[in-house]
Amino acid sequence: MIREIRIKDKRFPLKGGAGSDAVHQNPVYSYAVVELVDDSGLVGSGFAFTLGAGNELVCQAAAFYSQTLKGKDIEDVMVDFGGLFNRLSNEQQFRWLGPHKGVVHLALAAVTNACFDLWAKKRGVPLWKLLIELSPAEIISTLDLSYLEDVLTRQEALAILTGQQLSASLRMPILKVGYPGYDTSIGWFNYSDDKIRESCKKAMDEGFSAVKLKVGSTDTQRDIRRASIIREIVGSDIKVMLDANQKWTLPEALEVCQALKSMNPYWIEEPTHPDDIFAHQVLAKAIQPVKLALGEHVPNRIVFKNYLQSGAASFLQVDAVRVGGVSEFITISLMAKKFGVPVVPHVGDMGQLHQHLVLFNHICLGHEALFLEHIPHLKDHFIHPVLIDNGVYKIPQQPGSSCELKD
Amino acid sequence: MIREIRIKDKRFPLKGGAGSDAVHQNPVYSYAVVELVDDSGLVGSGFAFTLGAGNELVCQAAAFYSQTLKGKDIEDVMVDFGGLFNRLSNEQQFRWLGPHKGVVHLALAAVTNACFDLWAKKRGVPLWKLLIELSPAEIISTLDLSYLEDVLTRQEALAILTGQQLSASLRMPILKVGYPGYDTSIGWFNYSDDKIRESCKKAMDEGFSAVKLKVGSTDTQRDIRRASIIREIVGSDIKVMLDANQKWTLPEALEVCQALKSMNPYWIEEPTHPDDIFAHQVLAKAIQPVKLALGEHVPNRIVFKNYLQSGAASFLQVDAVRVGGVSEFITISLMAKKFGVPVVPHVGDMGQLHQHLVLFNHICLGHEALFLEHIPHLKDHFIHPVLIDNGVYKIPQQPGSSCELKD
Repeated sequence: MIREIRIKDKRFPLKGGAGSDAVHQNPVYSYAVVELVDDSGLVGSGFAFTLGAGNELVCQAAAFYSQTLKGKDIEDVMVDFGGLFNRLSNEQQFRWLGPHKGVVHLALAAVTNACFDLWAKKRGVPLWKLLIELSPAEIISTLDLSYLEDVLTRQEALAILTGQQLSASLRMPILKVGYPGYDTSIGWFNYSDDKIRESCKKAMDEGFSAVKLKVGSTDTQRDIRRASIIREIVGSDIKVMLDANQKWTLPEALEVCQALKSMNPYWIEEPTHPDDIFAHQVLAKAIQPVKLALGEHVPNRIVFKNYLQSGAASFLQVDAVRVGGVSEFITISLMAKKFGVPVVPHVGDMGQLHQHLVLFNHICLGHEALFLEHIPHLKDHFIHPVLIDNGVYKIPQQPGSSCELKD
Repeated sequence: MIREIRIKDKRFPLKGGAGSDAVHQNPVYSYAVVELVDDSGLVGSGFAFTLGAGNELVCQAAAFYSQTLKGKDIEDVMVDFGGLFNRLSNEQQFRWLGPHKGVVHLALAAVTNACFDLWAKKRGVPLWKLLIELSPAEIISTLDLSYLEDVLTRQEALAILTGQQLSASLRMPILKVGYPGYDTSIGWFNYSDDKIRESCKKAMDEGFSAVKLKVGSTDTQRDIRRASIIREIVGSDIKVMLDANQKWTLPEALEVCQALKSMNPYWIEEPTHPDDIFAHQVLAKAIQPVKLALGEHVPNRIVFKNYLQSGAASFLQVDAVRVGGVSEFITISLMAKKFGVPVVPHVGDMGQLHQHLVLFNHICLGHEALFLEHIPHLKDHFIHPVLIDNGVYKIPQQPGSSCELKD
């Protein structure tokens, strides 16, 4: 039984330009943390990710949502978590602050993730193991599929999960070899050319086969120069992704993306405003065969549905600490599977939670095991930090979702 | 000079089912209020609208944004308000909580509206008069047109305003006759059939020529019955709008809207989730010639742009206490003008602020003076409540935007 709910506002200033992008120059990686204390002594820990100021608002909203969990047994909560998610996210008055976006939805993510963490701990297994051992029907019960009926009915969702069971054993070997990572930390916006060169070489030495550069400079030549430096160092076999963090207007994006084409980016990420589905649609068509990736600022399953329908996004970067938590992450991954679009999470959690979720996506949904973003800056703050070896995430073995922070 | 900033969390419980809809059964009309106290003794008052729980979050976010105004002269602030709006809405860390949506954007609305109120008071004129006396270039300076470049450049916006100046005098007579209203309060969701009959007759007696009914019942027959009751009472000349408040899934909406067609609704409002642009597009095509209206849950100009591009919305119900305030309201009205779509505001402000803005839209943008929603429930709480006579809003004459609340 959940006997206590603790809310924590955790903030971690970064050093030397780490985390900077074209739009967010001075981020303070922050977590709005929910801890559900069980009377057996277990603590379910979940969080949402923000950049600092306002993290306390998410904490307060999380406190509001989590009241309802007090006195409940986590197994009872999870039997119909989809129903609970639907009720909480549509809470009569709070709903008006979204619906299903912004501060309130981030708060719901923190609560949801704490529930999944406690559930896995209660069963004494890592979250990935809990998820792959649930039956298709049990998975569906944890999801809120409302407002998706036109593209994914309950029956279709069930059929996807059931269909993939047949071939799941073929994908189990990932549990031996680990999940590939890619390095986001070689090219933060404020890094000098020399620092980029150095970080890029380091990433290669560490075995990464994909890296990311922040673009979106006022001076386009800076973007082109930095991209060229990286391509020169890594050669043509390593994937290089470019991330503009919403900096460009559509006319700017059309121009700069053409200019960046020659360095053969694996994708261009968040070229313009994340609400602008039609702008992404126009851009995606114009810059073919270069592909677009986005999702870290897409707030919920409904907007993701629209992005999938638009054909604009070739990679979905859904983040379980930015949408409504593990539950909505799985919902979106199911839709993506139906549309044949890969899920490559953004990792506001530094990969802690997503290392579990990509294993589920690969084994149970049949998503390709492409690669998972890696950001090392908060490693020291987690009790069980992700382990990367030769560019590959090692499989976590501790019970839960690896999201506990040190005090 | 602004010497003090006061933030107030005002909540007004409603009685007897007032304010209820298919999704929000128990609303507490609430305002997150920003007051800017000038050293001349003037108080600029602005707010955002919520349904109760969480109003304090909007207040806190508004406190964060409004710090920047302390010590500034309102005339200086308004010279480039568009620039300020852009900077505030893209504040490095806070932006991550949206961007441009939810709690943080509501908070920006409150701050923005307080600025416009103080500006009008400083000049000693009602807000509508201030706005219609500004030059096109001065209006444009109050707007943030970023991320709209593909549909509305600065030049085009200026050209619309300048072009309409030629015929503005033809629309000035509205200042003598007043702006038509429509009555939203005849058919709240929880009202009994008898209460609806009674309110409907009262609205007719009061001179309204348009009324609204809340639909979205679990039992579709209830919607049909209630709609028929109203059509029977008002006859065929009075416009009747139906409002589902996002209740239906797309498959449900396709079915129920067909069934409701026979009572000839003037529009069907918020049929499904407000983020679902493609669902509205499909529905709008399927139920022609019946038209869709929406906007009270569309958070910003970018999503409105997409709705205009989709052709799904035949009426934009942008609300200046739900998007980023007066500034973004005007921006969206400019876009709507370009697309030839009428603006019929949702009135979270009970019409207090919008009675000014629709005059500007009509006179300076050439929008049709269709009608403005009227909700009477908070009348006693405003210092200068709207005056409705024979179904028509009388023109407010006090300096400011009519948004001051009693203490």
